[in-house]
Amino acid sequence: MNTCIFCKIVSGEIPSYKVYEDDDFLAFLDIHTQSPGHVQVIPKQHHRWVWDVPHVGAYFEVVRKIAKAQQKAFNTDWILSKIVGDEVEHAHIWVFPNNKVTGNAMDFETHQQAIRAHL
Amino acid sequence: MNTCIFCKIVSGEIPSYKVYEDDDFLAFLDIHTQSPGHVQVIPKQHHRWVWDVPHVGAYFEVVRKIAKAQQKAFNTDWILSKIVGDEVEHAHIWVFPNNKVTGNAMDFETHQQAIRAHL
Repeated sequence: MNTCIFCKIVSGEIPSYKVYEDDDFLAFLDIHTQSPGHVQVIPKQHHRWVWDVPHVGAYFEVVRKIAKAQQKAFNTDWILSKIVGDEVEHAHIWVFPNNKVTGNAMDFETHQQAIRAHL
Repeated sequence: MNTCIFCKIVSGEIPSYKVYEDDDFLAFLDIHTQSPGHVQVIPKQHHRWVWDVPHVGAYFEVVRKIAKAQQKAFNTDWILSKIVGDEVEHAHIWVFPNNKVTGNAMDFETHQQAIRAHL
């Protein structure tokens, strides 16, 4: 049985606030948010580390797509990204606005709509 | 006059512990190190933000190349990466081993050789 929480988000078994999806990647709002509009970008296929994902260039193009949308949605140039990877054992990249961006970080529906509107 | 410290590292005006270089990107050890073998990857051309770099896919392929070499050089799977960007106004991506990796973080020549040997 696949117990990976991110695989369950990909399959839809666990719901998520999706902001972007293509054949290979999925981006959704992180509910353990660092800031309003904090997004996780993951490959749909299970890989342990970001460094294992075959098309890492395409992966990062998706991260940039989200970052550019966040710049517009939150009216800031300063978008951060982190790859840590010890929390969930499925490759993931965080991309999130800087901590000067105001707003209720838990207002997921508003932030989902704002990012999607700028993609 | 260009006063950007990373442009000066690209031109060689400021010396650095280079670990990788191609036509578009340069990777060198960060002297304000987070861990042994902490590398900065920058585009040679000046851009303010990582999100402004045209070939961001190619950029991230270089980051992965460094991460894969760090995995071997420091005998760990766990390599982190961060994009912050407020310290130096020239696009840069940090890539560095986790904090369980031991060794003298200031022993730049050893770490430079170890990473280069695994590229």
